[in-house]
Amino acid sequence: MTDSPWTRKDLLGIADLSAEEIEHVLDTAESFREVSDRPIKKVPTLRGRTVVNLFFEASTRTRSSFEIAEKRLSADSINFAAKSSGLLKGESLVDTALNLQAMAPDLIVIRHGHPGVPHMLARRVEAGVINAGDGAHEHPTQALLDALTIRQHKKRFEGLKVSIVGDIEHSRVVRSNVLLLGKLGAEVTVAGPRTLMPVDMESYGVRVVHSIEEAVRGADVVMMLRVQLERGARMAFPSTREYFRLFGLTRERLKAAKRDVIIMHPGPMNRGVEIASDVAEGRYSVILEQVANGVAIRMAVLYLLSGVHQEIG
Amino acid sequence: MTDSPWTRKDLLGIADLSAEEIEHVLDTAESFREVSDRPIKKVPTLRGRTVVNLFFEASTRTRSSFEIAEKRLSADSINFAAKSSGLLKGESLVDTALNLQAMAPDLIVIRHGHPGVPHMLARRVEAGVINAGDGAHEHPTQALLDALTIRQHKKRFEGLKVSIVGDIEHSRVVRSNVLLLGKLGAEVTVAGPRTLMPVDMESYGVRVVHSIEEAVRGADVVMMLRVQLERGARMAFPSTREYFRLFGLTRERLKAAKRDVIIMHPGPMNRGVEIASDVAEGRYSVILEQVANGVAIRMAVLYLLSGVHQEIG
Amino acid sequence: MTDSPWTRKDLLGIADLSAEEIEHVLDTAESFREVSDRPIKKVPTLRGRTVVNLFFEASTRTRSSFEIAEKRLSADSINFAAKSSGLLKGESLVDTALNLQAMAPDLIVIRHGHPGVPHMLARRVEAGVINAGDGAHEHPTQALLDALTIRQHKKRFEGLKVSIVGDIEHSRVVRSNVLLLGKLGAEVTVAGPRTLMPVDMESYGVRVVHSIEEAVRGADVVMMLRVQLERGARMAFPSTREYFRLFGLTRERLKAAKRDVIIMHPGPMNRGVEIASDVAEGRYSVILEQVANGVAIRMAVLYLLSGVHQEIG
Repeated sequence: MTDSPWTRKDLLGIADLSAEEIEHVLDTAESFREVSDRPIKKVPTLRGRTVVNLFFEASTRTRSSFEIAEKRLSADSINFAAKSSGLLKGESLVDTALNLQAMAPDLIVIRHGHPGVPHMLARRVEAGVINAGDGAHEHPTQALLDALTIRQHKKRFEGLKVSIVGDIEHSRVVRSNVLLLGKLGAEVTVAGPRTLMPVDMESYGVRVVHSIEEAVRGADVVMMLRVQLERGARMAFPSTREYFRLFGLTRERLKAAKRDVIIMHPGPMNRGVEIASDVAEGRYSVILEQVANGVAIRMAVLYLLSGVHQEIG
Repeated sequence: MTDSPWTRKDLLGIADLSAEEIEHVLDTAESFREVSDRPIKKVPTLRGRTVVNLFFEASTRTRSSFEIAEKRLSADSINFAAKSSGLLKGESLVDTALNLQAMAPDLIVIRHGHPGVPHMLARRVEAGVINAGDGAHEHPTQALLDALTIRQHKKRFEGLKVSIVGDIEHSRVVRSNVLLLGKLGAEVTVAGPRTLMPVDMESYGVRVVHSIEEAVRGADVVMMLRVQLERGARMAFPSTREYFRLFGLTRERLKAAKRDVIIMHPGPMNRGVEIASDVAEGRYSVILEQVANGVAIRMAVLYLLSGVHQEIG
Repeated sequence: MTDSPWTRKDLLGIADLSAEEIEHVLDTAESFREVSDRPIKKVPTLRGRTVVNLFFEASTRTRSSFEIAEKRLSADSINFAAKSSGLLKGESLVDTALNLQAMAPDLIVIRHGHPGVPHMLARRVEAGVINAGDGAHEHPTQALLDALTIRQHKKRFEGLKVSIVGDIEHSRVVRSNVLLLGKLGAEVTVAGPRTLMPVDMESYGVRVVHSIEEAVRGADVVMMLRVQLERGARMAFPSTREYFRLFGLTRERLKAAKRDVIIMHPGPMNRGVEIASDVAEGRYSVILEQVANGVAIRMAVLYLLSGVHQEIG
């Protein structure tokens, strides 16, 4: 990790990153993967560093992955949940940012419902800022952990056929994944009901189809998306049963994919809605590897950003 | 602690344990008791280990006891509260278990409203699982801390007269206590209003009576239970005043007990409902020793389970 | 820090402290300030000590400042939030105190809505107790961090003209500040609408005025208070616009102050209500220094109280 091409203070989105930077994060994460396999799952790398986890939206899954990553790096974590947060009530986001800065954290992990909030924060604080999801805009660590999982199985991205299927419109992860896979040379297909497909998807350089059969045919990777029932996806189709009939990933449908296809899902899954239970737990599924890789990617990102910070400060 | 008879991955209930295993947990806890009396209340035993506290029901008392035990052992604690938990929303408990497993925790402490959930979790994860209460089924660390407190005062269990008095039906702790005391040879009497007494209590090998006077007479240990007003116990008697008149432990009633009786209560107490305030703070009360022993028992259990895990992993 | 005049177990209020003790806390905090400027912001001072943060009212700002201070001192923090706290439900505050004591924490930081609760707690537990705000009564660490900020800029308190302006009635910080500044010899003026001014303010030995112009004139320090819209201050004036017109701190109004005036605010600010945005971020503002000093003061207080505890225990 000596000749790092990483010179950024923040990780705000995949849009900013070069293919080389992406590969460097993946390499770094690979070297952290084995820490979680040790009996003593801890390295002193970030000892004495303070990481603020600032979550304006509930997200136990992502927050806990970051928190475990922070603890495995020996950092001190401070958690702010939006609901209980007097810090955030009655003051502008700028004041929240300035206040956090005054307490001198080293890194801030932020989840917010509105696109661009992490970018605003990054401009106002010296601390490194990690975007843990800003609405449907970017969620870079999710795309990186997906990429790490793909690379472990496929060894390459160039020419790889990756199909992303489901509730494209409400997904927090599609945009970052499409950007990342495009930068690394994969051929991305996006599929979903018309009512859940943003009109401008073609502009991202992806193939857009409206049947899961077409998306799965010849695919190396099938990435299923959670139907965001809680964000209004419910209005877009007659019933979850109907959704499963039209867009659910079944063993039958999977037969059209490459023989060594891998199945991914960012979680939490709606079994029997976007994915059949036996497919979710089947031999092609790498869904739990994604979770494990999530901790490794977050360790890598925390490490890389704090390294830069260390040289500056 | 070298010749440990402890070979279990999980602590799910007292039902599983032999008398020898129970005594071994108590002995181990005894050796941890003095850590909490030191100026520096910390040992490096679980340094680098990750403990997930997964509470589907609010329980600050038990959770904080575990969390203090974890910190005194130098473990890293990750807290999940049910309410705020995106991890747990919209996915099956199995997926929650598998996801947790993928993050490679060493131990999981779980509290859940339904009997058997910790057992299901334990079958799905490699991590050691500690049942911190599954409905009214088992709450083994509570029974163990009660046993430690009794042993410190009475030195033996064989032939000891222990009476458990109050809201038997809604209690989280009765079943584990009855099982444990039976295994160690104590003579258990259970007393409470008929409306708060499960019909099958005799099948546990205990004496069932319906007056507190009868329960207290000649008792070595009187264990008072919290009237679970919030779980519907309110319907079972006319008023809390009436309950106190019939089943409240008073100084007067205590006179019929052995001269060196000890008074226990798992907390939180309803003073003036199941126990008079002067009895709760009086010379026979060991209620606060129970709290202190709770930390020691949890340290012992965390230590024993992680030891097994260490040898396997 | 060898010849400490600090012999107290608790920090309950400024009312108890001598000028010498106050200056000693400020000196100690000064020596901790630089820890937050290091790349490794951590000292082993409180390693192995347990600090319970017991917040009966939400207060992310104060809680996080304490939590960061605790982590920079290597203490173990246990957080109790009031809402989710089974520990606190259905039992008296006395039982909560006794239970906490039984878990043997070294220090307890308490925020409660009612005056005197920290004092009651301090009488019942061996642990050192820090009052983090008991209603509108005392909030000593806030007054101390304000004093540290003033001393850094003005080098003295004797004869210093300090004006406190705004919602005096609902403020959590006025009383401690008035007491502290009086003990150190400053001349305090208090200003605010009559509807937000307690009738007995003169009894504190302060000058009471009812125009911001009069308060600002010749002031060395202007301390603006948050209009506590959420605590009913809203009823006391026609509109926030009207409040700003009458009592908002503007650049124009600031011209009447000393040329080297400093502007303070305990946060969170209502920009455009009690303070103009350009004043809040302007050259006289020391508001963010207050936040940074907050961490240093809390480190100092935690250190001083634990030191006493160490000698006793």
